[in-house]
Amino acid sequence: MVMLMPFRACCSTQARSASLLSNLIPSLSVKRLLATHPNPVQLRAFSSTTTRQLRTTELQPTHFPSLKCQSDRLWDDIHSTASFGEGRRYGDESEETGLSRLTLSDSDKQARDWFVETTKSLGCEVTVDSIGNIFAIRPGIKNDVPATFVGSHLDSQPLGGRFDGVLGVCAGVEMLRVLDDNWIETEGPVGVVNWTNEEGARFPISMMGSGVWAGARDLQATYDLQEVSAGADGRRCTVKEELERIGYLGSTPAQLKDGGMRMAGHFELHIEQGPRLLSMKKKVAAVTGVQAYKWFEVHVNGQSCHSGTTPMNFRNDALYLASRLIHNANRLARDQYNHTRKQYLASVGIITASPGSVNTVADHVMFTLDIRAETDEELQAFETMIRESFSEMVLDVKQKVGRPGFKKGDKKAALDKAGKGTLSVEIRETFHSPAAKFDETAVGFVVGAARGVLGEGEKKVPRMISGAGHDSVNTARHCPTAMVFVPCKDGVSHHPEEWCEEEDCAVGTDVIIQSVLRFDQWRSEQGHFAG
Amino acid sequence: MVMLMPFRACCSTQARSASLLSNLIPSLSVKRLLATHPNPVQLRAFSSTTTRQLRTTELQPTHFPSLKCQSDRLWDDIHSTASFGEGRRYGDESEETGLSRLTLSDSDKQARDWFVETTKSLGCEVTVDSIGNIFAIRPGIKNDVPATFVGSHLDSQPLGGRFDGVLGVCAGVEMLRVLDDNWIETEGPVGVVNWTNEEGARFPISMMGSGVWAGARDLQATYDLQEVSAGADGRRCTVKEELERIGYLGSTPAQLKDGGMRMAGHFELHIEQGPRLLSMKKKVAAVTGVQAYKWFEVHVNGQSCHSGTTPMNFRNDALYLASRLIHNANRLARDQYNHTRKQYLASVGIITASPGSVNTVADHVMFTLDIRAETDEELQAFETMIRESFSEMVLDVKQKVGRPGFKKGDKKAALDKAGKGTLSVEIRETFHSPAAKFDETAVGFVVGAARGVLGEGEKKVPRMISGAGHDSVNTARHCPTAMVFVPCKDGVSHHPEEWCEEEDCAVGTDVIIQSVLRFDQWRSEQGHFAG
Repeated sequence: MVMLMPFRACCSTQARSASLLSNLIPSLSVKRLLATHPNPVQLRAFSSTTTRQLRTTELQPTHFPSLKCQSDRLWDDIHSTASFGEGRRYGDESEETGLSRLTLSDSDKQARDWFVETTKSLGCEVTVDSIGNIFAIRPGIKNDVPATFVGSHLDSQPLGGRFDGVLGVCAGVEMLRVLDDNWIETEGPVGVVNWTNEEGARFPISMMGSGVWAGARDLQATYDLQEVSAGADGRRCTVKEELERIGYLGSTPAQLKDGGMRMAGHFELHIEQGPRLLSMKKKVAAVTGVQAYKWFEVHVNGQSCHSGTTPMNFRNDALYLASRLIHNANRLARDQYNHTRKQYLASVGIITASPGSVNTVADHVMFTLDIRAETDEELQAFETMIRESFSEMVLDVKQKVGRPGFKKGDKKAALDKAGKGTLSVEIRETFHSPAAKFDETAVGFVVGAARGVLGEGEKKVPRMISGAGHDSVNTARHCPTAMVFVPCKDGVSHHPEEWCEEEDCAVGTDVIIQSVLRFDQWRSEQGHFAG
Repeated sequence: MVMLMPFRACCSTQARSASLLSNLIPSLSVKRLLATHPNPVQLRAFSSTTTRQLRTTELQPTHFPSLKCQSDRLWDDIHSTASFGEGRRYGDESEETGLSRLTLSDSDKQARDWFVETTKSLGCEVTVDSIGNIFAIRPGIKNDVPATFVGSHLDSQPLGGRFDGVLGVCAGVEMLRVLDDNWIETEGPVGVVNWTNEEGARFPISMMGSGVWAGARDLQATYDLQEVSAGADGRRCTVKEELERIGYLGSTPAQLKDGGMRMAGHFELHIEQGPRLLSMKKKVAAVTGVQAYKWFEVHVNGQSCHSGTTPMNFRNDALYLASRLIHNANRLARDQYNHTRKQYLASVGIITASPGSVNTVADHVMFTLDIRAETDEELQAFETMIRESFSEMVLDVKQKVGRPGFKKGDKKAALDKAGKGTLSVEIRETFHSPAAKFDETAVGFVVGAARGVLGEGEKKVPRMISGAGHDSVNTARHCPTAMVFVPCKDGVSHHPEEWCEEEDCAVGTDVIIQSVLRFDQWRSEQGHFAG
């Protein structure tokens, strides 16, 4: 082993942190790997580092069970980075706060800096593109080919939890460490990507960075997008202003078609954010795609009047009508599920009423509507159903204005004039994410990896459609993509108490690592690295 | 007439504006009054001014029809003061904007300054009390007795109109001018009062200034009240800070019981703010009281979760539940009306949902609830009904969480755990205005004055209960009080397009003036000015 020291010492192309010096002594896991190899493998130095000794193509199925992440190291990353944008506290333990790390905020900058620093210290080359996506690439043996990425996002909802997105990025970082620990040299480069603004909470386009990369979003329009709430100075910043302010407006083109970052594959680990794995008592699911969804702003227009003097039947109450519409959207989603046993979702998360006075009937209400269904066709049908029911409801409420309660004929005209006809609803589509179907080959590697990690007893790895949008929806347009779901406590997400057990985080990370290595082997078999 | 000049010239106790010099020549209306008096009246000078020649007690019923306001002057006051806090424009005409004059704002200060300056120029002594109520008093013959006031308010809703409150104050100012024009000397003093924060829009207690005066509100708690929305600097100012800032924190005690302004009677002219006069085709109503009402903040607590991953039947959706409650409150008010043919009102004007993200189910919703009924007993019963229905609705929605859709028995426990039990509703009472019944004597003067103004043909002056709270609710606790309603266009109020025809403003003002003079006569008959 000592003979390797001088070789490494003269190798200046690679910056390594002091803490990784220990890797120069074969770890137990490397020794295990070497011992289990059918043809004894000599310690060798490849092109880029001195500590990489095993090629992916030399790994055998029997090796994989030894390739485990260090769950305490992963766990520490998840929780130490939660100090960047500490969220609402819900218990006394140090880990019992959520995360409030809105995209491109000061705390997002802190998390990004951590990501850049950490991946650089693990030997990666870091690229920031012009929409702020950060790509950290660990060189392989062949480096003029696209890298295989593990990716997710470090931004959160305003009252988010510690795992959504963060787990996927931390799993990628942990993969870099596991490869180092085990002296593994991949055939092609592998990397980790942190996508900008997956949540769409501050700037209201979700999966924004990956959307621009994939060409699903226009770069300039995205730059001009304003934050949903004004800051302390009353201004609403744009995406571009905030990218510049925090120093993450990179020079690499954001859009793949314009020379953006090429990608051989994309693997994403994520908490399920729902209760299905829990109810199936499963540890891991292979995600085969993402359901279709659309976002709308629904504008309800009425007429303000005094709440103490205007009889109920004279009102053009925008908030009353809005409450009927919200109720109706919920009812339709439930009915659709009951009729078809397929998941339909309708959700209202934001509502504002103006003029906003206790004793004035609202003349305008805006609420957001998020509808989802498994396929594009089902979503379209569901949207039509909701639009029709909204129209009927408007008509129904409107027709009751200014009618009953006054008997004499000559009063009717005055009453009709006073009330009828000012209620209306306008539905504006703000976002559309068509259904995504992941590459079967990539999904197959996830299934295989999950079987390997969970042991031979685990015959059936569940496959499921994701309810939430993920950056993988966008990468799936251009490269083989797959996702791994792990369960989260009570199925709760987008909430400070969102929780994923340490063991489940580790299992998911192991599945991701093995999926990437299997994919690297497959690329080699397919001749991607030839020539 | 010329002989009066020296007398007036040497009278320095009274500041008169140059424009009033014309009053030194008897106006046509004064000549008419003098001519119709059964015993010819000589021009005389009383204690306080040289231009006052007729005592109220010398006025005969036949005089009253001549005592008319100048509607163009009144109209000009209403519209020229609307520049202080110009509201939303809805048409091209100069008068086609609403009013946005939140209490204690810069524009409220402008309106207050106008009121002080104008009433001082009309010979009034102006007193500001420690909650910012402004009392302008025109001396009578006997001045050690309380004044009879005409009053209302100059503040408006955020998207208010030009007449609500303003008409009542301007009618008082016009009364001062009409008394001057007609050289009338009242037996006791008469005045005009502008009450602070009648609307309760910025600081969420309506009829605030009069409430403190009457002892219905604690002064210190009122001082500490914060505005509902933070200013540009992110701060929420208190009532006291804003009173100080605009210079209307007076030194006279605000509370009557602590030596505040004494009041012999209170007459208020107001637009009806509803459609009843219109539908009856009447010009004027005598208001006999104000319905009871209560304001609440309803807090709905649920649990946030991801809108794309959480099946409908797993959600503790605070906004969905809130929409059911709002719908229900409306339904109950309609049902009560249909069953009893008495007016019941339930209104929701403000709603907020958190965390406020398109794809996150809300974990908390706050909405305001304003409920009204004619009597205290009816209101109490209505409140109980609403509280019970809310409890039932919470239970109903809660029981459906985490139940259907999953068939196998062993999954039920997980589902139940995931969903059930986190929905709750808390109803906090924030304001209570018991029903007010106005003094029959005072109401009688309004009815008599209305008959006089509208001519002998107008036999039936309608009497009605006010749906809105008014400062008169508070004055009625301590002195004879009555109100006059005039119709407003389409019954619409708390809206920029709120409108009252010039003729109707004038008719209402004439009724108020004559009511005050009849009341002054009555006080004299009752011996209020003896000794």
